[in-house]
Parts: sequence; C-alpha cells; structure tokens
Amino acid sequence: MERQQQLYEGKAKRVFATSDPSLVIFEYKDDATAFNGQKHAEFSGKGELNNRLSAHFFAAVAAAGVPTHFVELRSPREQVCRRVEIVPLEVVVRNRIAGSMARRLGLAEGAPLRHPVVELCYKNDELGDPLVAPSHAAATGMATWAQIRWMERSALTVNRILTDHTAAARMELVDFKLEFGKMAAGIDRTEGSADAHPLGPDGLILADEISPDTCRLWDRATGERLDKDRFRRDLAPLLEGYREILSRLEGVVEPSR
Amino acid sequence: MERQQQLYEGKAKRVFATSDPSLVIFEYKDDATAFNGQKHAEFSGKGELNNRLSAHFFAAVAAAGVPTHFVELRSPREQVCRRVEIVPLEVVVRNRIAGSMARRLGLAEGAPLRHPVVELCYKNDELGDPLVAPSHAAATGMATWAQIRWMERSALTVNRILTDHTAAARMELVDFKLEFGKMAAGIDRTEGSADAHPLGPDGLILADEISPDTCRLWDRATGERLDKDRFRRDLAPLLEGYREILSRLEGVVEPSR
Repeated sequence: MERQQQLYEGKAKRVFATSDPSLVIFEYKDDATAFNGQKHAEFSGKGELNNRLSAHFFAAVAAAGVPTHFVELRSPREQVCRRVEIVPLEVVVRNRIAGSMARRLGLAEGAPLRHPVVELCYKNDELGDPLVAPSHAAATGMATWAQIRWMERSALTVNRILTDHTAAARMELVDFKLEFGKMAAGIDRTEGSADAHPLGPDGLILADEISPDTCRLWDRATGERLDKDRFRRDLAPLLEGYREILSRLEGVVEPSR
Repeated sequence: MERQQQLYEGKAKRVFATSDPSLVIFEYKDDATAFNGQKHAEFSGKGELNNRLSAHFFAAVAAAGVPTHFVELRSPREQVCRRVEIVPLEVVVRNRIAGSMARRLGLAEGAPLRHPVVELCYKNDELGDPLVAPSHAAATGMATWAQIRWMERSALTVNRILTDHTAAARMELVDFKLEFGKMAAGIDRTEGSADAHPLGPDGLILADEISPDTCRLWDRATGERLDKDRFRRDLAPLLEGYREILSRLEGVVEPSR
C-alpha cells in the first residue's frame, strides 16, 4: 500500500491518505504536549512506543468484539487504519477521580467512584475541549442521540476489556479518552469479531489512539504513574513509564491479533 | 402558623422554620447578585415581585401535576413551602442558546437548538456551580440514578408547562434553572393534583424558586430581555422587566390555584 498526501497533522501524529480510499496511515510523532499544547517537548522513541501501544490496545479491544479503525502495524512508527470522519466528541471514562474531574468537583485525586463515569467533551482546542451535557451534543448536532448512546455503551465495554487487560499486567486503568469516527457510506467491516458488538449507528467505530498519552495507568501496588502525567507534572522520565507499560503488557498478556 | 428560627440565608432569600416541622417560610429579599455574588445591588420591591412571581410559576406547574414545595403566599415577601433537603444539583433547561452554554461552546446567543437541552450543575459556590456529567453526579453520591432521571424528566415537563404558560403572555422562555429537594421520610403529599406526575424517588419534589432571577424570559416579538440579564449586563432597569412579566402573566393567564 502506498502512502500518499498528508490529510492531517495533530499534536502527536500525522495521518496520510493511501491508494485505498477506505484506509489511512497513522504516523506517530515523538512530540509530547500538555495543557492544550502550552507545554511541549520531544522524546526520541515516543512515536514508536505509542504506535506499538495503541496497536496493542486496539487489538485487545477488537479481539473482544468492539469494532475499531485499527488494521495493522506498517512500520515502527506507522499503522494502517480505516478512514473515518471523527465525531467531534471526546468520550472519557473514569474509574477513579483524577485530573480535570478532581479539579472540577474539588475532590481528591485517587478517590474512588461508586461506578465508572462517562463524560463527553467537545473537541475544540480554542475552547479547551469543554465538558458538555449529552443533550448539548445532540441539540447542537455534534452527534445523534443514537450515536451518543452507542459511544457511551461502547466506552464502558472498552473500559471492562482494558481494565481486565491492564490488571493482568499489574496496572490500574484510572481513566482514558476515546474518539469515534464514521466510516464512509458503503464500507462494510469485512473482518474482526462480528456480531457480539456490531458497528455503531451510521458506520461508527472506535478510532484515534489509545496510549499512555490518552489514559492514566498506575502501578497497582505502588500507585506510580506510568502515563503522560509523568510529563504533565514533571514526575519522572516519560518514556521509562511507557516502556514499562509495553514490557508488562507484552510479557503478561498477548492479544489474539 | 408561627415563624421560628432562621434555617438558612442565601443571596436572594431567607428560610425560616415554623411550628409545623414539615413546613418552612421563604422570605424573598431585595438583593440581586450575579457572577457568583461578585456583582451585587439592592432593588426596593424585588423581594415582593419575586415572591409573587415564584408563587405564580409554582402554582402553574403544580396545576399541571408536578409535585412542588409551594403551599401558599403568607405576606407580600413570604410564602409557605414544604420543608425539603435540597439535592446539590441545579437542573438547567434550555430552549435556545444563551449565557454559559453560548460561552462554553463558542456559539451565538439566541441560536436555536434542535430540541430542549437539560444540564446538571453541581451546587457549589466555591467551585462556581460547575457543569457535571450525569454519571459524575451519580458516581459521587450527589443523587441516585433514579433521582437524576426523574429530575431530568420533570424538568422537561416543567419546560413544556412554562413555555406554553409564558407564550400565552407573549414571552419566550429561553432557559431556566430548577432545584429539587427530598421531603423528610413519612411525609405524604396530601393535596394537589395527584397521580399524573407522582412524587419522585425518595420523596423528591420541585423546590427552591422559579423567577426572573432563575430564568431567561424574552419578549417574543422584540427579544427584549425581561429577566435578570437586565442587571447582569446593565441592559435596562431591573424591576421594570419583572413588573412587566408579572402584569403580563396576571393579565393573560390565571393559574388554577
């Protein structure tokens, strides 16, 4: 498959068209950013680690039946994904209070929740990706109610899958952010694990990235932060955490594809 | 009924115990505040107007079957209400984009919505009454899921009632904020319009205040603001707007109690 023109450059990756109109190539960059881009640095090797980690998490999720954009790794920094139109909502799942939820509600980081939380944020850098009510999203056309309900349900399914998956590698999945996208009309999902969890309304599938840039992963025993909070909060060398996550995951659990 | 010790003093009213443990007396003050108390003024006569307006709106809502705390007017500034423990959530309904929703999403005030919006905010002055996801509220114990769903449904019912009620007086109900409270165990609702819309889970009823302090009301023809935005934004004399609302409502539609 041939890599063609760049479609998009974000803070941590580039997306390229390919000779197949239904597929794109993601290239993970070495950049790390925080606080909506105000803090920035480069870490040589980060792109390769996140490419492998995101591929690993997407494969685990797909193996459990959730339809995703991930197709295959292409090179150390590249992966092939299904081409989608991203829904402008970030779907955040939390198992423990941390980050913006702690600040918003004046609660202690690490405090437990009675059950997992799902929140929606409007993807808009200028506005700082604000939290929105589900009805805000539906009433302004960011997504339909059917899409919102499917994304919320799917996010909780992904939470169950990845909580178990990371627990087997002695880590706690504290929270994570997902994005979903619509495949172009007429494209069917031709592979993967079928009907346990079918495509969402209007060809919706799980998309974007799942990596320590987009989740919080703590060591289950010590609470050590292994994710991007090491960089956000100057806690510890970033990539040592990412390498630790990858080595634990690849050592303990091997997803089926 | 005897007025006893003060239980609470807020920005716009005081609440007093009575000789009946299931009832309280609300006294509306002349104070107007905005921006979480940063802007403050007194308007002689505001307390009387809001006492009458809130009584009027609660009576209209109760007549349509929604259980509320309102019992009767007691004096120009006072009304008798059922005693409740307030749920620490503000339930906001919007029919058009305005105020914090316009700022949050970078959208124009006055822009239409595809359908009414319901949002929940955590009642906490220090935190600025932040918007929360429904699952935030449930997972941190602000309310149960059953209470949240009942409050959301009731808020949309109140919206239909008051939208029609104010439209008959040539006004558009742009948005409003409701609060709900739990009656003490063992207290039954002994009057009112019964089973069309029964009590919420755990004795939940509509409480607090419905007035131009807590809603946006625009003249339907001209868009003139008749509510507290006159004060917030220094648009026009505050009480002229409130008097206009009252005279339109009392002239055109008379609620049944």
